[in-house]
Amino acid sequence: MTSSSQEILNKNSLFESEPALHDDVAGQIMQMFTSFNQVNSLEQQIDAITENISQVFLSTIDSNSNIDLDFLLEKFSDSQIPIHPTNVESYLQYISNNVVAHSIHTSSPRFIGHMTSALPSFVRPLAKLMTAMNQNAVKIETAKALSFCEREALAMLHRQIYSFSDGFYDQHIQNNLSTLGILVSGGTVANITALWCARNAALGPKDGFLGVEQEGLAAALDVYGYTGAVIIGSDLMHYSFDKAADLMGLGIHSLIRIPTDCHNRVNLQLLRQTVTECRQQNLLIIAIVGVAGTTDSGGVDALEEIAEIAQAANTHFHVDAAWSGPLIFSEKYRYKLAGIEKADSVTIDGHKQLYLPMGIGMVFFRDPYLASAIEKQASYTMRKGSFDLGKRALEGSRPGMALLLHAGLKLIGLKGYEFLINEGIRKTQYMAACIDAMPEFELLAEPDTNLLLYRYIPEHLREVVAKKQITKIDNQIINKFNESLQKTQRQIGNSFISRTIKKNLNSGNEFPVVAMRAVLANPLTTEADILAVLHDQIQIAAKITI
Amino acid sequence: MTSSSQEILNKNSLFESEPALHDDVAGQIMQMFTSFNQVNSLEQQIDAITENISQVFLSTIDSNSNIDLDFLLEKFSDSQIPIHPTNVESYLQYISNNVVAHSIHTSSPRFIGHMTSALPSFVRPLAKLMTAMNQNAVKIETAKALSFCEREALAMLHRQIYSFSDGFYDQHIQNNLSTLGILVSGGTVANITALWCARNAALGPKDGFLGVEQEGLAAALDVYGYTGAVIIGSDLMHYSFDKAADLMGLGIHSLIRIPTDCHNRVNLQLLRQTVTECRQQNLLIIAIVGVAGTTDSGGVDALEEIAEIAQAANTHFHVDAAWSGPLIFSEKYRYKLAGIEKADSVTIDGHKQLYLPMGIGMVFFRDPYLASAIEKQASYTMRKGSFDLGKRALEGSRPGMALLLHAGLKLIGLKGYEFLINEGIRKTQYMAACIDAMPEFELLAEPDTNLLLYRYIPEHLREVVAKKQITKIDNQIINKFNESLQKTQRQIGNSFISRTIKKNLNSGNEFPVVAMRAVLANPLTTEADILAVLHDQIQIAAKITI
Repeated sequence: MTSSSQEILNKNSLFESEPALHDDVAGQIMQMFTSFNQVNSLEQQIDAITENISQVFLSTIDSNSNIDLDFLLEKFSDSQIPIHPTNVESYLQYISNNVVAHSIHTSSPRFIGHMTSALPSFVRPLAKLMTAMNQNAVKIETAKALSFCEREALAMLHRQIYSFSDGFYDQHIQNNLSTLGILVSGGTVANITALWCARNAALGPKDGFLGVEQEGLAAALDVYGYTGAVIIGSDLMHYSFDKAADLMGLGIHSLIRIPTDCHNRVNLQLLRQTVTECRQQNLLIIAIVGVAGTTDSGGVDALEEIAEIAQAANTHFHVDAAWSGPLIFSEKYRYKLAGIEKADSVTIDGHKQLYLPMGIGMVFFRDPYLASAIEKQASYTMRKGSFDLGKRALEGSRPGMALLLHAGLKLIGLKGYEFLINEGIRKTQYMAACIDAMPEFELLAEPDTNLLLYRYIPEHLREVVAKKQITKIDNQIINKFNESLQKTQRQIGNSFISRTIKKNLNSGNEFPVVAMRAVLANPLTTEADILAVLHDQIQIAAKITI
Repeated sequence: MTSSSQEILNKNSLFESEPALHDDVAGQIMQMFTSFNQVNSLEQQIDAITENISQVFLSTIDSNSNIDLDFLLEKFSDSQIPIHPTNVESYLQYISNNVVAHSIHTSSPRFIGHMTSALPSFVRPLAKLMTAMNQNAVKIETAKALSFCEREALAMLHRQIYSFSDGFYDQHIQNNLSTLGILVSGGTVANITALWCARNAALGPKDGFLGVEQEGLAAALDVYGYTGAVIIGSDLMHYSFDKAADLMGLGIHSLIRIPTDCHNRVNLQLLRQTVTECRQQNLLIIAIVGVAGTTDSGGVDALEEIAEIAQAANTHFHVDAAWSGPLIFSEKYRYKLAGIEKADSVTIDGHKQLYLPMGIGMVFFRDPYLASAIEKQASYTMRKGSFDLGKRALEGSRPGMALLLHAGLKLIGLKGYEFLINEGIRKTQYMAACIDAMPEFELLAEPDTNLLLYRYIPEHLREVVAKKQITKIDNQIINKFNESLQKTQRQIGNSFISRTIKKNLNSGNEFPVVAMRAVLANPLTTEADILAVLHDQIQIAAKITI
């Protein structure tokens, strides 16, 4: 070292002094950043308060408070950032009274209307650890071990889906040229990523043409001699496919939605016919989509048959198993997903039936090199040949959710997930049997997995419903009644069932039906809870006059 | 209630019994889900362990362990999900030894090479509370109060950017037709969303044509009479714009990257010329992008001038302020962002200079109705006219990160953020002065904000560098030396500086330069830390032989 640099290193301040900590704001802010390793630190004090808030929240049986939305609109109407730091204790009190108190008890055993659930107890401490680590999974330089941990977790699920050989996983699990899966924020980004890969792979570089990635969709279709490009699936495909078709420049009209049968499965004959027509019209079929767990009813497409159709048409086969993917853990029910192992790509959500917190979606690839079709680089990060996970991904910077995914797979294990899946289906069958036996309700379809559609029938219409003689007007009355019932139950907040609109039901009913939609995935939900929710509906219905 | 349904309600089990809890797996899993409200519960035990792990991690000064990547590849090579649940304690030990120990200390005061930092102490407890609440921000039915809290937080930042009137915010802050901003997982999704809105708004429904959203890009350009569509910005635009151009079907060739000057700002004359040429060629300019904080050097484009160019061309003006957006909090430095208030959309990352954890990006809109161009609905959720936040968003289900954003704005406040921003810039100037005074280093450019580019000069080349007489070969030697220096420092792990490749530097050097890239945003970093990092480099350099 030279003497001049030594001089600088010895001198502790060059031309401006360190901030004066007696300054009020500076002192407060620096305390916020330095308190973590002190006894009775600010963080420990906050932690004690938020722990109390969490315990109250998690112990509540009601699904939500009965506050009116109008009150909430008023409560959150201040667009001014405070000039000075707010007192932490009073802010936590405010959050407790205004946000937490009126949030949804997604873990409540009587909140059985959406795809949220109670979470296992390791999730909260690990989420805090993940936040303490604050890794950025985009690249090795900000997520060293976690990058490899993430690849391992994704390989575990890939193996569960595809069951390739030991040799395959040895080769690809930590190979920087391979992508067995991508961890994303949720199923929507997973579906979009899958279709993006499929499109770019179908329209890659060729004879001097640099591919759709570089030259765009119109030029690519032109070079390849297609008249257009489509995505084909059932009319129960998730709305993320609309987003994908829009975003990717295809237009939603290019998303062909084939009618489903009364079991919520795509009509295979119509699918075959559509594929033939598209090929006759020289349209590129970017992908055929199979749905494994429709959002509105949990129906699973005939994946084996769709795989055959896709293979015959030499087309990418994507399975949206965001919801039902974890059925692969159940020896008893995994037959429902037969054919998923033939999919070129598969979406599974961690924050649904892997019982992990919100913000974990995944897409898996049969061909470990497919995702190269979307690879990007940047000189300040994500270098070619590196292990940087952000090279092949829609998202850039993202949190270390892999820690939770890895923990879920290890701590719950195959048998644990099997138990959770089987339990959900068992309770759904129980609820279906209850509804079937109760004159107040009409079961709209036998449940395929753990979603259940039914409706309440006002007393004066029960006879015509039983005889399958309802008119369009009867149906409208019942629809209006159920909409009102669902909204009232939601507003009161003791329990919760969602609602959807179904056409094409196997109940001799040709009209669109407003259906109650139960989702049974919460391990805390008991048979008594199910009865209590139905009981709530009967009591509320008695007071509805339409 | 009818007697038959009463009978069912009284009976506690219909046809299959509740799971037998003495079953090993079932018992273990149920314990995981029910332990939260017990004294000395499983969760509390896990919490105590993870707290210890966190404290050790957060107290470490070193930037990372010196483990070789090859060891990590081996450590994470097991693709088998265990059959039975793993013992929690041994798993936490495993995570501590294998993942946490070899993760990056992004909060270390000597990790000054990437856009991560220490986080304020309220973040970790609130992240745990957020996980306990597990809201799904996609819709009111799974995020009641939090949806309004999110809108409020976004309005606060919108106001900070645009400074519209009280009346404007009264009208829009909680208006279900308005979108002041969208909370997303990160800046990449924010940028893509902004361009998606711009494209769809520019090519909306017209004369019976249903718009690009429905009919696709090729048809839309045709109907509107454009020969193509482009996005224009500087050559320092983030690589998320490549992703956007690719994903949206434009192709990366349609992303026009205009050269920057030696201050990392887009050359305005070339920009004007390009805009004129595009218009002459009848190309739709979907957006002109201004960068506020380039990823490689922190440079800020001349936003006022770009705003004028965009306005004259009647084109969407997007500002990617993912990094430098929070300069708006600083009275001293907000002049650097002058013109941002004229942007049609602005990206800001919460997980960068708002000191929030990974997973918080935002896009803001000048026109509260612009995001209607991407609105989607679904019958089981996200109904028209509702307050469901997922209606206008790329993502679907997503976590309640708004809780952390709201807390950051309230608990840190304007003055707190101002302090943090000013401190980062002050320390950067200090580091620049150190480097300037040390013969071992060459300062490559005066820092614009709080990113700093410099390089080490091997002793035998210092004289030619000082005289600005270096040859291409000299430069190659220096580049190789710096690459080796950066990699060695990273591997040893006491401290960390990233590296990038710069062309067009204002140092009389016409060759591409491998630059050391310091990012100074961590409040824990002292002047002594800065000197220690430079000292590390000098010591490592003494042992490098190239």
